[in-house]
Amino acid sequence: MSVIEKKTVLKVDGGGILSPAGFKAGGLHIGLRYEKKDFGVVYSETPAQSAAVYTKSHFQAAPLKVTQESIGAGGILQAIVVNSAIANACTGEQGLKDAYETRKMIADRFRLPEAYVAVASTGVIGECLQMDKMKKGCSEISVHGDYNSAKSFQQAILTTDTVEKSSCVEVMIDGRTVTIGGAAKGSGMIHPNMGTMLGFITTDAAISSPVLQSALKTAINTSFNQITVDGETSTNDMVIVMANGKAGNKPLNENHPDWGHFQEALSLLCEDLAKQIARDGEGATKLVEVEVEGAHSTAAAMVIAKKIVGSSLVKTAIYGADPNWGRIVGAMGHSEVPLSPLTCDIYIGEECVFSNGTPQLFNEKSVSDYMKKEEHVVIKVSLQDGTGEGRAWGCDLTYDYVKINASYRT
Amino acid sequence: MSVIEKKTVLKVDGGGILSPAGFKAGGLHIGLRYEKKDFGVVYSETPAQSAAVYTKSHFQAAPLKVTQESIGAGGILQAIVVNSAIANACTGEQGLKDAYETRKMIADRFRLPEAYVAVASTGVIGECLQMDKMKKGCSEISVHGDYNSAKSFQQAILTTDTVEKSSCVEVMIDGRTVTIGGAAKGSGMIHPNMGTMLGFITTDAAISSPVLQSALKTAINTSFNQITVDGETSTNDMVIVMANGKAGNKPLNENHPDWGHFQEALSLLCEDLAKQIARDGEGATKLVEVEVEGAHSTAAAMVIAKKIVGSSLVKTAIYGADPNWGRIVGAMGHSEVPLSPLTCDIYIGEECVFSNGTPQLFNEKSVSDYMKKEEHVVIKVSLQDGTGEGRAWGCDLTYDYVKINASYRT
Repeated sequence: MSVIEKKTVLKVDGGGILSPAGFKAGGLHIGLRYEKKDFGVVYSETPAQSAAVYTKSHFQAAPLKVTQESIGAGGILQAIVVNSAIANACTGEQGLKDAYETRKMIADRFRLPEAYVAVASTGVIGECLQMDKMKKGCSEISVHGDYNSAKSFQQAILTTDTVEKSSCVEVMIDGRTVTIGGAAKGSGMIHPNMGTMLGFITTDAAISSPVLQSALKTAINTSFNQITVDGETSTNDMVIVMANGKAGNKPLNENHPDWGHFQEALSLLCEDLAKQIARDGEGATKLVEVEVEGAHSTAAAMVIAKKIVGSSLVKTAIYGADPNWGRIVGAMGHSEVPLSPLTCDIYIGEECVFSNGTPQLFNEKSVSDYMKKEEHVVIKVSLQDGTGEGRAWGCDLTYDYVKINASYRT
Repeated sequence: MSVIEKKTVLKVDGGGILSPAGFKAGGLHIGLRYEKKDFGVVYSETPAQSAAVYTKSHFQAAPLKVTQESIGAGGILQAIVVNSAIANACTGEQGLKDAYETRKMIADRFRLPEAYVAVASTGVIGECLQMDKMKKGCSEISVHGDYNSAKSFQQAILTTDTVEKSSCVEVMIDGRTVTIGGAAKGSGMIHPNMGTMLGFITTDAAISSPVLQSALKTAINTSFNQITVDGETSTNDMVIVMANGKAGNKPLNENHPDWGHFQEALSLLCEDLAKQIARDGEGATKLVEVEVEGAHSTAAAMVIAKKIVGSSLVKTAIYGADPNWGRIVGAMGHSEVPLSPLTCDIYIGEECVFSNGTPQLFNEKSVSDYMKKEEHVVIKVSLQDGTGEGRAWGCDLTYDYVKINASYRT
């Protein structure tokens, strides 16, 4: 991947959803939150081929149902409206009615068919949207002039996130530069509920909705689906991508000679956003990355990596800078996929702490120092069961996680 | 169950592994731990039909392999030797050799065939047993006179558990009193590893090893397998039962008229021990019980119950006495079994907080007070998908969990 990344796929520092040609975005404060921006829109100048993935929660929130209906109608979007503070989840008939009404108001505002509008929400579960405020937002929102700002959109979608999250990559397709940009928000806790992960991706690539759906699914599997803050899945999780074709490439599909590069670029963008979310996990002080190689299959490697990065015992050990490889063994040990303990090597940073099923002598202090100093702690596991490789990302488990989630109301 | 429990199955306060006829036990300090007892034996005066269940971890510790071999040889045990402090897990060939040698030393000491001895360990992963100390223990251990003590055995198997765990039930079989006793230890963290759950059960029932195995498996499924402290499974988890037949009942099997009562009694004993382990989870201040009814199947109910009780967000909410039903919805939402949000009711204590997929008005303060005051918090979920019922137990997630697991070395 590193060769491709260097030569064909380029990360663009400071880029985001407005980097691809033909997109606008804005955000404003409508009063769902006390002071911060809480309402935003991404807008494409022309109808864009679109795709999305949704939470697998049985309790899918109302906006996700409306968005599914919009994309399902013809695979085209031209605007996405997002609010923070209220998730509009577990709100029954009223919630669905409110999501439809929000969609209609944005469609009217931008003179679009309703089916060209997607709706997303994040925040409190079990509370209804204050529709007077939503109405005000829909009539005041603008994506022109000074209002056109990726930053204000990025801010509008946050809940208890501590930083904005954005990313941008460029990739050569048919000799033209195709740009992909993204904004995301991660786990934040707002009474009385759980976090929500939202991702919004724009690109000027020419690609049809079904092909884009397939590319998004592939990208999600190795990125957003491989992060965990606390093993929870929200009612509102969703990632949406809009592709407006302004780059002028020949339509992408699996037979296009540059298909692999596009997939690589989209996957890289998703991975970058996902890592930003993991790093900003509640109470986190570190990004934790687990790499597994030599597994029975790619799927097995990914399961094992996620099991390790999601283990509360591994997460607390990392917070405590304690090179407790026994906990890594423990987490791997109860993964559902087969693995052979006798051919298992474990590295913390560059140090081998366990090899061929046997503890290794290692410098505890230097490994502990590594865990203490690095903001990005890497655990590598090498099996000898096959050629499967996979990675997963998470964060440490700290006092602040308990504080944020147990006592944020007092 | 309540009728059976009252009339046929009786909990015996203060009873334990020595309550059934014909068993002895002892524990002593051999120096694996600084001061506390760390070596114990359960002994049956006559060969006992035996059964056991083992961790599903891929990294099964050496003693479990030796115990499987012993029970596999003929289904008979007469002694179980246990040490705490060192788990003898991930110790390769040497570990296996040490476990065999421990078995042999106890067999010699009590003049038994080696296959009549089971071995169990709990403690540090990746360290070898100090065999000079084990040898001393095997030659000094006694189960006669003052040395015969359930209490000293219960103490010898603990690691960072804060309390001893024991239970006893009586059940009428063929008009005779059959007694079942047990001792257990729960999750405790010792460098550099994770907790271990061990359970030891004695009974004077007459029952063959294969039938006992089946009864144990049934009992485990609704007890030890339904508790979670942090979602981890250890290398050393094991529950062993010995039945010496001294009660003089006709051999139990599924056709015996009192079979149901025996199964009920064994399940009740296991549930009692399992709840003691959950309550004593690391840093825990409360036992949390989740009851699910009306699920698609028993298995579905059990999965949903365990998902809720294992959710970090639910656990922190309980610690914070925060009636955050949104987190319960979230945890249920990503269980792998089907469920219908629109017919879901949730109760915290006696208070209904969510009904038919809609938030309910409820007295937040009284629910919060309930969560704050009760040492045993009950969450009930009622679905309308079928007749499946299931329960699971866990504990709250507290600052002390992070403290114990992140900074216990400093």
